[in-house]
Amino acid sequence: MSDLVLHNYFRSSTSHRVRIALEMKGLIYRYVAHHLRHGEHLEPGYLSVNPQGLVPALVLGDGTLLTQSLAIIEYLDESEPEPPLLPKGAVGRARVRMLAQMIACDIHPVNNLRVLTSLRTVFGAGDQDVANWFRHWVNEGFGPLEKLLAGSQETGTFCHGEAPGLADICLAAQVTSNTRFSVDMSPYPTISRIHAACMALPAFQKAAPQNQIDAE
Amino acid sequence: MSDLVLHNYFRSSTSHRVRIALEMKGLIYRYVAHHLRHGEHLEPGYLSVNPQGLVPALVLGDGTLLTQSLAIIEYLDESEPEPPLLPKGAVGRARVRMLAQMIACDIHPVNNLRVLTSLRTVFGAGDQDVANWFRHWVNEGFGPLEKLLAGSQETGTFCHGEAPGLADICLAAQVTSNTRFSVDMSPYPTISRIHAACMALPAFQKAAPQNQIDAE
Repeated sequence: MSDLVLHNYFRSSTSHRVRIALEMKGLIYRYVAHHLRHGEHLEPGYLSVNPQGLVPALVLGDGTLLTQSLAIIEYLDESEPEPPLLPKGAVGRARVRMLAQMIACDIHPVNNLRVLTSLRTVFGAGDQDVANWFRHWVNEGFGPLEKLLAGSQETGTFCHGEAPGLADICLAAQVTSNTRFSVDMSPYPTISRIHAACMALPAFQKAAPQNQIDAE
Repeated sequence: MSDLVLHNYFRSSTSHRVRIALEMKGLIYRYVAHHLRHGEHLEPGYLSVNPQGLVPALVLGDGTLLTQSLAIIEYLDESEPEPPLLPKGAVGRARVRMLAQMIACDIHPVNNLRVLTSLRTVFGAGDQDVANWFRHWVNEGFGPLEKLLAGSQETGTFCHGEAPGLADICLAAQVTSNTRFSVDMSPYPTISRIHAACMALPAFQKAAPQNQIDAE
C-alpha cells in the first residue's frame, strides 16, 4: 500500500487507534493535521475530502476515502495480513470485536470532543460536570470490560492471547485519553496490565499523541 | 447453529439490528425479553449472563456470550456465509463497515436510552431538550451519510449494490428509531429510498420492533 494520507489530530482517540494499526503493519503514511479545537476539520477544504468533517480519514493512493477507525483498521488488516489484528476463528474474532466495540461504541462516542462541547453549549455544563460525565461513561464500560478480561482464559498478555490486536488498540487509546480526565484506574488491574504491555511496544510508542507533529 | 438465545428488547435499535441479521440468515433463536425501561437488564440474573447489562447479547449453544451488535452480526456472517452481509473485496467491505459505523458509532451511542436518561438526571433535560438532542445527532450523521450514498456509484437499491447487508441493517434500525422523535426525513431521499427497499423484505418486517413478543 502506498501514498496513504491520514487526516488526523494528535489527541483524537480514534485517530490514535488508526496510527497504532498503521505502525503495527509497518505502513508509511503522510500525516495531515487538523486542529479540532480550532475547528479546522469543519473548513470547506476538508469537508470536500470527508463530508462528515471528522478525523480520522484515510485516503488511499487512488483517492478512495475511508472513515471510521474500526472500518479503517479492518481494511488494513485485510490488505496487509501480517501481523494479524484479529484471531483466526469466528468466536475469537467475535470476542476481540466485542471487546473493541465496548470501548468504540459504548465509551468513546459519548465522551468525544463534540459531545462534551454540546454538553457545555446546550446544558451549560462546566469543567467539573464534563469531567464527571467522562469518568462516568468510562467506569460504566471499564467495569464490565475488566470483568470479561479478568474472567476469561482467552486473555493473555494482551486482550486475546499473546499478541496485540484490535481490542488492545482501542484499550490503549482509551486509557491514554482517560489521563486527561484523571480517571482512577485502580479498579482495573487487568486493563492497566494490558495497557502497560502495549506501551512497551514500539508501534504503540510511535503512535502516542505526544509523539505526533501537531502535539502541543 | 442451534440453541441460540437472544437477550433482547423490542425497541432497542441494536437489538433490532441483530434480529434483522438472524432473520436474513434464516436462523432460529429463542427470544428473551428484558424491559429496559423497567431496568430488567440490570437485575443480578441478567448481569451474571452479561456483566455489561446491555442488550443485545447472543448466547451460543455452548454458552459462549457475544455482545455488541456489529460483532455479533459479523460473527453470524462468518459462521453462516449465505446470504453475505459484506461484499468480497477489502475496499467494498471497508465502505460498508464505514457506512454502518457512521450510524453505530456516531449516531446511536449518543442517543440511546441510558444517555438520554443521563441528560435528564444530570442536566435536568426535559422532553423537548431530549428530542432536540436526538434529532441533532441524527442530522449530524445523516447529512454526510446521505451525501456519501447519493454521490457513489457503489450505491444501488441498497447501500452497496443490489443486495442488503450490514450498512442497510444499521440504516433500517436507525430510521425506525427516528420515528419516535419525529425526525424530518425530507433532507434524506437516498436514505429514505433504501429504507423503503429494506422494509419490503420479509426479514426486515419480521425483525421490526412492533412485531416482537414484548412490543407494547
